[in-house]
Amino acid sequence: MTVTIEIFSQGEEIITGQTVDSNSAWLSEQVVALGFKVTRHSTVGDDLNDLTTLLNEIAQRADCCLCTGGLGPTSDDLTAEAVAKAFALPLTFDAVAYAQIAVFFEQRNRPMPASNRKQAMLPQGALRIDNTLGTAPGFAVKHGRCWFAFMPGVPAEMRHLFKATIKAYLQQHFKVQPSHLVTLKTVGIGESALQERIKDIPLPPSVQLGFRAGTEDVQTKLLFPFAYPSDDKQRLVTQFVAQIGDFVFAIDGLEQPASNLVAVIAAELNATRQTVAVIETLSQGLIAAKCIGQPWLIQSLYQPTLERLTAQFGLALNQMDLMDTALRLGQLVRQQSGADFALVQLLDSSASNAQDEPMVLYTVLATAHGAYPQTLTVSGKLQRKQNQAALMALDLLRRFLQGKHTIVCHEYA
Amino acid sequence: MTVTIEIFSQGEEIITGQTVDSNSAWLSEQVVALGFKVTRHSTVGDDLNDLTTLLNEIAQRADCCLCTGGLGPTSDDLTAEAVAKAFALPLTFDAVAYAQIAVFFEQRNRPMPASNRKQAMLPQGALRIDNTLGTAPGFAVKHGRCWFAFMPGVPAEMRHLFKATIKAYLQQHFKVQPSHLVTLKTVGIGESALQERIKDIPLPPSVQLGFRAGTEDVQTKLLFPFAYPSDDKQRLVTQFVAQIGDFVFAIDGLEQPASNLVAVIAAELNATRQTVAVIETLSQGLIAAKCIGQPWLIQSLYQPTLERLTAQFGLALNQMDLMDTALRLGQLVRQQSGADFALVQLLDSSASNAQDEPMVLYTVLATAHGAYPQTLTVSGKLQRKQNQAALMALDLLRRFLQGKHTIVCHEYA
Repeated sequence: MTVTIEIFSQGEEIITGQTVDSNSAWLSEQVVALGFKVTRHSTVGDDLNDLTTLLNEIAQRADCCLCTGGLGPTSDDLTAEAVAKAFALPLTFDAVAYAQIAVFFEQRNRPMPASNRKQAMLPQGALRIDNTLGTAPGFAVKHGRCWFAFMPGVPAEMRHLFKATIKAYLQQHFKVQPSHLVTLKTVGIGESALQERIKDIPLPPSVQLGFRAGTEDVQTKLLFPFAYPSDDKQRLVTQFVAQIGDFVFAIDGLEQPASNLVAVIAAELNATRQTVAVIETLSQGLIAAKCIGQPWLIQSLYQPTLERLTAQFGLALNQMDLMDTALRLGQLVRQQSGADFALVQLLDSSASNAQDEPMVLYTVLATAHGAYPQTLTVSGKLQRKQNQAALMALDLLRRFLQGKHTIVCHEYA
Repeated sequence: MTVTIEIFSQGEEIITGQTVDSNSAWLSEQVVALGFKVTRHSTVGDDLNDLTTLLNEIAQRADCCLCTGGLGPTSDDLTAEAVAKAFALPLTFDAVAYAQIAVFFEQRNRPMPASNRKQAMLPQGALRIDNTLGTAPGFAVKHGRCWFAFMPGVPAEMRHLFKATIKAYLQQHFKVQPSHLVTLKTVGIGESALQERIKDIPLPPSVQLGFRAGTEDVQTKLLFPFAYPSDDKQRLVTQFVAQIGDFVFAIDGLEQPASNLVAVIAAELNATRQTVAVIETLSQGLIAAKCIGQPWLIQSLYQPTLERLTAQFGLALNQMDLMDTALRLGQLVRQQSGADFALVQLLDSSASNAQDEPMVLYTVLATAHGAYPQTLTVSGKLQRKQNQAALMALDLLRRFLQGKHTIVCHEYA
């Protein structure tokens, strides 16, 4: 059975764009994991008409609604009033809520402002949801077929009320069955190329396919319904991985915990206590920055000028063959730093220097037994190219560590 | 006259909470500044029925609607199809859009997947909105009284389309009176400390005050209504700056164009053709990464071990007085790199190494005439500390370049 849920955020600061609404995403993620189907997010500002209209709409559409915001003590906090008006449930004084608010101020040695009495006025028959973190209690009412829960907009208080009270209520009162998400994470391949590769895999109608392109990876997501046979799940995921190939660096949701590119590299390097030194050009510090907290990164140098860089290592710059320079530099950096691996990235600056033009990178992974070269063209805005350059260098290392055969080894001369 | 506008985000990744929808806040802020009244934000997932229902609702409610997402090449990108169905505008092949998509792939030396042809299918009579950053063109249609503009969900592409095309259209076709936003940008001071500093400034009721804490700065926002007297505006901003002090690195919206910390530094350095070399520890490449595209950054070295770092420069490590080591290192780095300024950041690793504990940083700005030390404790999650370390080092340079007197000069011994 599908149980639908809507998320409703109230607040002038959200509708005018002063604040990014992160509550809706957090609540959605929580209830999707429980097995609910989120059908809509809505936001309106501090306007009584807009609020009552939206409450009545939702009451007719959804089985359940989680609302945040508008429970504060000031005159522009209208949620309780809007619920009273929309559902004909007059506001009534809740003595327990009032006592809780009084205790909140007592504990902080502050006098209770008169305006806070308003927060103890709840719609008739509402279930009070205690809030130990702030002055605004939450509350729940049922109207038509829809169960509404109202929480403060302050993220910490909202999360607290959800975890302490609302989650258990949802699990008890709605028959939902959690679905299961498997995510294939890739870098170096775009969303449409991914779609091309997997288009011939027959997808059971109950399995939902999705994609997400972010700055750190491109994800292919398979959402399996509750009680989907484990073997069939494994078989489908294996088919996807076979089609996508070595671009897949991690599979989340299938035994292993959630991962990312640096964590995958770290797992391999930490097991063998091996270390890495890096020379960056276009990525300009971003390889190092992405490896924050990783003890195996023992050095990173950013040096925009190839002349200065090669001079620093006593190498002749071979402008005609940058890959040759990168290979020799890789070997030197390994030796001088004492690292097990060197990642050297050279930018062909003889080409156009216009920031928005495509750029060519020569990246080398130097190891004890030979070097792995990667020639790469990156394009788009400069920040995007910087990020791609960093990701692709790290991915070269990841492929080597995972024993992928789509990279070519150059023996040292 | 009030012109109402709604923001509509589409995407399974938003409705299920995998992605926080920052597009709605960005677009709201833009159109509020133009003088529009934002009345509602809505989000639905990749469901044709939900999409057409919502499109028809909005067409009856609003004068204008800005929509993001669902324009990609894959089968779950349904926006064009939903518009076609909701407004009875059959999808038709747009040869210009197709040619633009082909060029996008040509420039990247990649074959165009067949699936991308879908992105050239636009609702009949739609105005195409060219997208030079990606493969998905936007488009606009009018239905009933409502003008709809559809943009990709990728934030960079969405912002590009809005700035390049949609903003001008909105200004020409709707009679709105722009309000005026002035933003004071700071680093190194939190939101509540800002509020404390400005709490005694009398604020006219027509001026709206807001705050936003982001990764790159903390912003204090003053939104002035249309035709607010220029002198009064200037006077209020001056009062705010006086109270906040040297933390303010830029004021956006008052003559100068929008700025950020690196751009403020770049303006000073480029005018005098001066250069900078950097030593990073906790920031781990992030100082360099933030300076992407800046020719004045001529070198950055990340070196986690103070022993190795000092040995590399032939210096004795003074573990008892890291600031002394940082001062001497700063002078050496300046000399060896030939840069006009050296920024040296040393992490006191003798303290706790637990990633979530507070950490102490000794940062020095070395100049031709002396050095400026900064001792700093950063706290929070490791990524937050990394970012703070990078920002505060850059802010030390910014304060020197802007001639702020809240930093202390140490003469070289």
